[in-house]
Amino acid sequence: MNRIYLDHSATTPVDSRVIEAMLPYFDNIFGNPSSPHSVGQEAHMALEDARQIVADLIGADINEIFFTSGGTESDNLAIKGVAYKNRSKGKHIITSVIEHPAVLRTCEYLESDGFEATYLPVNSEGLVELSDVEAAIRDDTILISVMHANNEIGTVQPISEIGKIAHEHGIYFHTDAVQSAGKLEIDVNKLNIDLLSMSSHKIHGPKGVGALYIKKGTKIEPMIHGGSHERKMRAGTENVPGIVGFAKACKLCNDNLAKEAAHMTQLRDRLIKGLLTIEDSYLNGSRSQRLPNNANVRFSFIEGEGMLLLLDMKGIAVSTGSACSSASLEPSHVLTAIGLKPEDSHGSLRFSLGRENTQEEIDYVIEVMLGIVEKLRAMSPLKKS
Amino acid sequence: MNRIYLDHSATTPVDSRVIEAMLPYFDNIFGNPSSPHSVGQEAHMALEDARQIVADLIGADINEIFFTSGGTESDNLAIKGVAYKNRSKGKHIITSVIEHPAVLRTCEYLESDGFEATYLPVNSEGLVELSDVEAAIRDDTILISVMHANNEIGTVQPISEIGKIAHEHGIYFHTDAVQSAGKLEIDVNKLNIDLLSMSSHKIHGPKGVGALYIKKGTKIEPMIHGGSHERKMRAGTENVPGIVGFAKACKLCNDNLAKEAAHMTQLRDRLIKGLLTIEDSYLNGSRSQRLPNNANVRFSFIEGEGMLLLLDMKGIAVSTGSACSSASLEPSHVLTAIGLKPEDSHGSLRFSLGRENTQEEIDYVIEVMLGIVEKLRAMSPLKKS
Repeated sequence: MNRIYLDHSATTPVDSRVIEAMLPYFDNIFGNPSSPHSVGQEAHMALEDARQIVADLIGADINEIFFTSGGTESDNLAIKGVAYKNRSKGKHIITSVIEHPAVLRTCEYLESDGFEATYLPVNSEGLVELSDVEAAIRDDTILISVMHANNEIGTVQPISEIGKIAHEHGIYFHTDAVQSAGKLEIDVNKLNIDLLSMSSHKIHGPKGVGALYIKKGTKIEPMIHGGSHERKMRAGTENVPGIVGFAKACKLCNDNLAKEAAHMTQLRDRLIKGLLTIEDSYLNGSRSQRLPNNANVRFSFIEGEGMLLLLDMKGIAVSTGSACSSASLEPSHVLTAIGLKPEDSHGSLRFSLGRENTQEEIDYVIEVMLGIVEKLRAMSPLKKS
Repeated sequence: MNRIYLDHSATTPVDSRVIEAMLPYFDNIFGNPSSPHSVGQEAHMALEDARQIVADLIGADINEIFFTSGGTESDNLAIKGVAYKNRSKGKHIITSVIEHPAVLRTCEYLESDGFEATYLPVNSEGLVELSDVEAAIRDDTILISVMHANNEIGTVQPISEIGKIAHEHGIYFHTDAVQSAGKLEIDVNKLNIDLLSMSSHKIHGPKGVGALYIKKGTKIEPMIHGGSHERKMRAGTENVPGIVGFAKACKLCNDNLAKEAAHMTQLRDRLIKGLLTIEDSYLNGSRSQRLPNNANVRFSFIEGEGMLLLLDMKGIAVSTGSACSSASLEPSHVLTAIGLKPEDSHGSLRFSLGRENTQEEIDYVIEVMLGIVEKLRAMSPLKKS
């Protein structure tokens, strides 16, 4: 059975060109970049080449890129790092209710340590309102953290405007760009971003690698202490093969961004159109402010878990909610925030596309979904007959 | 030119069998272990199989292994995690002056946040004295952290006895086993260990992966917040290929531990014997309580940097101090702690062996060293003539 993978927001297969780029760094150019001998310096050069490539994807300077173990660590470092370093200036952080758990749990942790956080609501499309941002700002606000694109419903926030508001008040602006980097064009300067989180494994790079962009001059405290790696911002021997692979993945995205976004947008729209022919089905999130690869659709009267199981039996991988929250039985905090009732949240599926998906796959998935929804609704006690 | 790599304490080439084990997890079994569909569950199973293998290396239970991004993160998590969680019980930590920077900088950070730390001295062989441990304990001591084997001089501490003392006083015992795991037999229960840090890239596994053993029942606070990964102890999508590779590296060590330790010990002793035939050369560290793969030798009147450079030109990679401190011009804190004057510290070299080194390589290195020391001493202003 051919598998159809439509869960790219959870993780992606590593691109064969990325694997090829990484391989020499496991056992040939394997040195510790901190070692002064040739074996180490070869690794060091690869590390800095990779840093430049990652910087290029988001319009940053090479010295503004700090490698981490992934998006979650980047979010933690950005938020805790700014909070602890700027504690004397203020203790208030603004974020949104639909952030990734890496941001939400970090803010909650800081609340337990004397900080205060405002969680901005979103409208029915999942968009933060600029007037809410303005209204939430206090004299002691030190950081605004609003994600670029939501991992469940794909809503793209007006981050340039949010960053502008932040800067007008002398507040740092962080954005979690784990879902958008490599899919949407990003220029950290044009978008008024001080800190930006990236993850390798969401863009066909290896797991266990990410980066935090930190604008030059930003006052921030390290989170992992030890050796002088990453210009004393993040201790620990650098994951050279992973970083080289991450950079290759960034380069592949950068080289083909417009083309791949157009490809995914076309498939996304075809998928949405096809799924919405099903009676009592609705698109979650924004129609216009949306990631090119995200379709999140709710089907009334039935459960996402049942659909996911039946799709899996057909070799189709999709998601209810996000992988990072999958252990929970609670309705999605994102879908709840855009106003869905628990039963509608539970009837929602996320389809997230990748560069290798095809129109034939999309058409097959639509066909299978028609049958699955019909079958499950026939069994559903919720379905009004 | 054939390269001779004698810097395995800095990092190791990934074993070809490890690379082979990892490869399928990049693009075939590539799912997110948190995803409930088949693609995710295959990855989840690989993750749990790997956890068991890592647990087996140190006599732990599968549920006591928590994957991290490496040894430094493990040290940070162990020490900060115990400190913050047990703050109401006490604010005092005991460690040693010769710990890895990942432990020292973490303790210093905690000191800046209201904790107090005692840094135990070591004797001329680099050994912590048990009487010093006893004497340092206070009513508010919550943690003792003493490394298993030192990364510069290879001295193996009496950790079983230190752990016993800790437990007699109801204090947690953490050990950084980054240099010893896979080289010395470790049973966390017999050795009275509550927390143990491991790193993959020191044992022919990939960089960017490590683990923290946390004994069941230990009260500890997570450091990286977000999703419910690693049983809520460490958020972030698990680095499945890296973890699979780490486990394979552990298995290879476990299967051949005695044989490889004997091989490295034989080479180490041959190297030490050969180098000590050089006039005014001395072994740093303990003769008997020593890692099987470490030789750290000082050569009076000359500089380690010069020796390292000339060795590098001959294709031989060794280290002055540790890679993690290589950016610093300060004399090694470890060599200073065992009583060396700055000029003797600067004249020391660390040779760290690996499973693939041969007797021929060792003999060649000794021969090259004889010439290098002679050449540098002829130029040295320090050499009494």
